[in-house]
Amino acid sequence: MSTSAKDWLIGKALKVVVAVPPLHRFVNRRLINSYAYATGSRPRAFSMAADYTTWPGLTDRRYSGRHLGAQRAYNAALPPLDEVLALFKRTEDRRATDTSLLFPFFAQWFTDSFLRTKWKEPEKQDFAENESNHEIDLCQIYGISAAQIDMLRAHEGGRLKSQMIGGEVFPAALFEERGGTMVLKPEFATLYSEANFNRVFARADDAQKRSAFAVGLEHGNSTIGNALMNTLFLREHNRVAGVLQRAHPDWDDERLFQTTRNACIVLLLKIVIGDYIVHIAPADFPLMVVPGMAEEESWYRTNWIAVEFALLYRWHDLIPATATFGGETRDGSALRHGNDWLLQVGVDQACRDASRQLAGKIGLGNTAEFLLDVKKSSLLMARTCNLAPYNAYRKYYGKPPVESFEALTRDPALAARLQSLYGSIDKLEWFVGIFAEAFDEKEMMGELLKTMVANDAFTQALTNPLLAKGVYNADTFSKEGMAIIDETNGLADVIVRNTGITDKAEVGFKIR
Amino acid sequence: MSTSAKDWLIGKALKVVVAVPPLHRFVNRRLINSYAYATGSRPRAFSMAADYTTWPGLTDRRYSGRHLGAQRAYNAALPPLDEVLALFKRTEDRRATDTSLLFPFFAQWFTDSFLRTKWKEPEKQDFAENESNHEIDLCQIYGISAAQIDMLRAHEGGRLKSQMIGGEVFPAALFEERGGTMVLKPEFATLYSEANFNRVFARADDAQKRSAFAVGLEHGNSTIGNALMNTLFLREHNRVAGVLQRAHPDWDDERLFQTTRNACIVLLLKIVIGDYIVHIAPADFPLMVVPGMAEEESWYRTNWIAVEFALLYRWHDLIPATATFGGETRDGSALRHGNDWLLQVGVDQACRDASRQLAGKIGLGNTAEFLLDVKKSSLLMARTCNLAPYNAYRKYYGKPPVESFEALTRDPALAARLQSLYGSIDKLEWFVGIFAEAFDEKEMMGELLKTMVANDAFTQALTNPLLAKGVYNADTFSKEGMAIIDETNGLADVIVRNTGITDKAEVGFKIR
Repeated sequence: MSTSAKDWLIGKALKVVVAVPPLHRFVNRRLINSYAYATGSRPRAFSMAADYTTWPGLTDRRYSGRHLGAQRAYNAALPPLDEVLALFKRTEDRRATDTSLLFPFFAQWFTDSFLRTKWKEPEKQDFAENESNHEIDLCQIYGISAAQIDMLRAHEGGRLKSQMIGGEVFPAALFEERGGTMVLKPEFATLYSEANFNRVFARADDAQKRSAFAVGLEHGNSTIGNALMNTLFLREHNRVAGVLQRAHPDWDDERLFQTTRNACIVLLLKIVIGDYIVHIAPADFPLMVVPGMAEEESWYRTNWIAVEFALLYRWHDLIPATATFGGETRDGSALRHGNDWLLQVGVDQACRDASRQLAGKIGLGNTAEFLLDVKKSSLLMARTCNLAPYNAYRKYYGKPPVESFEALTRDPALAARLQSLYGSIDKLEWFVGIFAEAFDEKEMMGELLKTMVANDAFTQALTNPLLAKGVYNADTFSKEGMAIIDETNGLADVIVRNTGITDKAEVGFKIR
Repeated sequence: MSTSAKDWLIGKALKVVVAVPPLHRFVNRRLINSYAYATGSRPRAFSMAADYTTWPGLTDRRYSGRHLGAQRAYNAALPPLDEVLALFKRTEDRRATDTSLLFPFFAQWFTDSFLRTKWKEPEKQDFAENESNHEIDLCQIYGISAAQIDMLRAHEGGRLKSQMIGGEVFPAALFEERGGTMVLKPEFATLYSEANFNRVFARADDAQKRSAFAVGLEHGNSTIGNALMNTLFLREHNRVAGVLQRAHPDWDDERLFQTTRNACIVLLLKIVIGDYIVHIAPADFPLMVVPGMAEEESWYRTNWIAVEFALLYRWHDLIPATATFGGETRDGSALRHGNDWLLQVGVDQACRDASRQLAGKIGLGNTAEFLLDVKKSSLLMARTCNLAPYNAYRKYYGKPPVESFEALTRDPALAARLQSLYGSIDKLEWFVGIFAEAFDEKEMMGELLKTMVANDAFTQALTNPLLAKGVYNADTFSKEGMAIIDETNGLADVIVRNTGITDKAEVGFKIR
């Protein structure tokens, strides 16, 4: 059968499955479980607390988790870092098949909320610690600590602080002008830790500060995508709070805020499973969040973000060589600290434009020059964490080891280069291996990378306490909140509710 | 059949079951599940964070959990506190059937480690927060925070700090004499928070301070039982560390400490399940810790100690009117701040004597005068937490509501008194109801109390990460640690390994 005939048949079969709700739920569960059970479940014997099993290592989630134990001798004998880094450097502007730039915008913004490797000082990361609470909690707009949340709330009608710019709603300004220079607004003086603030703003000029937003994470101002997503979700939060306020005039600010937050977190979860992960998967099967389903599975365990999860998500290659907004094409690096550009183009146009241009393709040889420093830090992190080799992870996820560099890459030149660096496929470092894997046109990434991302994602998204049997109900979200959750299936729903865009087909992760 | 013939038959049947390992495991699992599934599993919709479901309430374990939601109107209409408190006051020195004083010694010491309702100031408790990490972690000897652990460690050979008194090993002294008065040793200056330190030591005289030990919890010096248990477990820790040090001369202090701690926590778990809970159960079925078993059950969820669990454990009635050590009989209140008495009697004699005298009987009308203040605070806590009525909890645990005060108490006088206080059985407050339940000679407590304690205990002891499939192995405990775990089945094992007592039958929770 030809590939297109096969695709047509798969598409036909999927339509049948989806039309029968119990069948849809059955296949949904089977698909999710096939990844969630790809390896053993938490609790894991190791974390970043120590090379061996300790009580803090088993219980203290300030430390990052880890899937496989430390391999010090192996890591000490790896090829020179700079020679390996050179593998990642972009050689041509390779683009994805059908993935829009909206996808990396969402991916970075989404994962920044739980992949928060700690920065001790502006230039020094502590690879052993994770500053998040390991949950999908929309801390991007709410902040992590109670003190941060307090600073970001308007304390009226359950709303978050916001500002109007050119007739449009944005998050509040982080800085204000005083005596001719931009200074932190006193109400946000302690919003970010010194280390986090400095690493984003130490070298920021007044222009950058002028368009900086007060949002949950300091990272929220580091790319145009983060600023766009924060703006959309802040608008949605305040919109939902308004709906709830009209329905429950007797509720105080606190109850409106908390109930709105409950609903908004579930909106995000539905987008992640039903839109974002669906796009990552090769077949467009409509995955669903089925409340209570995960509790029946033995992979239902408290979240604990692993260093491998933090590292495998370094998809810098998704950032293309150039980006076009409002008809103007700039170098990809203009996406960094791009709030200015966003304000100039406007939210509606930015959503449309991001949905129309292709993202970069994931893989070696496709990381932009301006992102090589970040990639270097990733490589260094993988080595400092003493991760096991690529084939050890394949085994851990129940896959046969790859037997040669050619089988891995399907690219003789790259295979030869890897061979000369590592000598043996069994010595290949994991962080290089997952980005060296060849994959088909329909795919976005290689086999092990996809398995690992799906395993950690499903077992840490569907475990969200808001999806639990005893919690997922109208008491938790309000009747109105439940209705909003029910009618939300993708990011496009949030966009059309909070912009001038009315046609959902104009925006999305997939370019049709 | 007569009761004694029935007991004989049950005893005979149990012997058969225990003799066949797969049958033993099967019955063990069935018994544990019958309590663990008595109600729905975590995550629960409510915690002490708010009356409704909020994100902090679902995720922030600084707040205590709660089984049932708040009932404000019901609690506002309860009878006067002092009239209810009078129900608890001891009217005669009622004793347990076969429970030794060693049992409440262990019970208090054990539960103090996770039922840690927070004290904001010496006289003011914050009923909404729990200061523990919700795990059975032996914080009684190790402390909770990394800073505390650091202060308590000898930093040599994996040992904890200790001192010799009269040729016997005890925990280190907390105070030292300076200029004629007892002052905190500088190394322990910040061992306890100010609020915790003051509530135990603000009114302590120099004699009390002279015998105070530096242990993990400030409570460790508040009863003779706590001091005794801390001493036994500190000796066991240092003994196990010695065994490991001899077997692994290349291990540093840190590895010896952490591996010893892993093993000692599991020793405690084995004692809790196989000795302590076995004694609580009506039939002497040898319950077992079977590593990995709990992971197969859907009650396997991250621990979250509920306020109900903290309250139902207020077994002050177990403290009898008098206690006898070293041939001297004193009022039960002498057990408080009794380190002096312990040092005078000696650890061996204290273990023997505690194992020979009967504890008090659990129930109304049996709380010693000197403990009525603590009971009053418990009642106040239950009301401040706005707990649901007794019959609501019966329903929640799948039991038919009790239909009358007489059916509950089997005591017409008490029933009449409760009737006049509450008017209706459905209005009876839970904290009174669980201690008003009648029970048979063979039992230690009533039906709902037993179900609730077993449900919370099993679902939070067997979920200990050290018992997980991927963790419970010789890498975690060392081969020597595994062997020590294997040969430990009860508190008597720890006692004979760390005292001059050689016959295990001399000590235990049950008086034969």
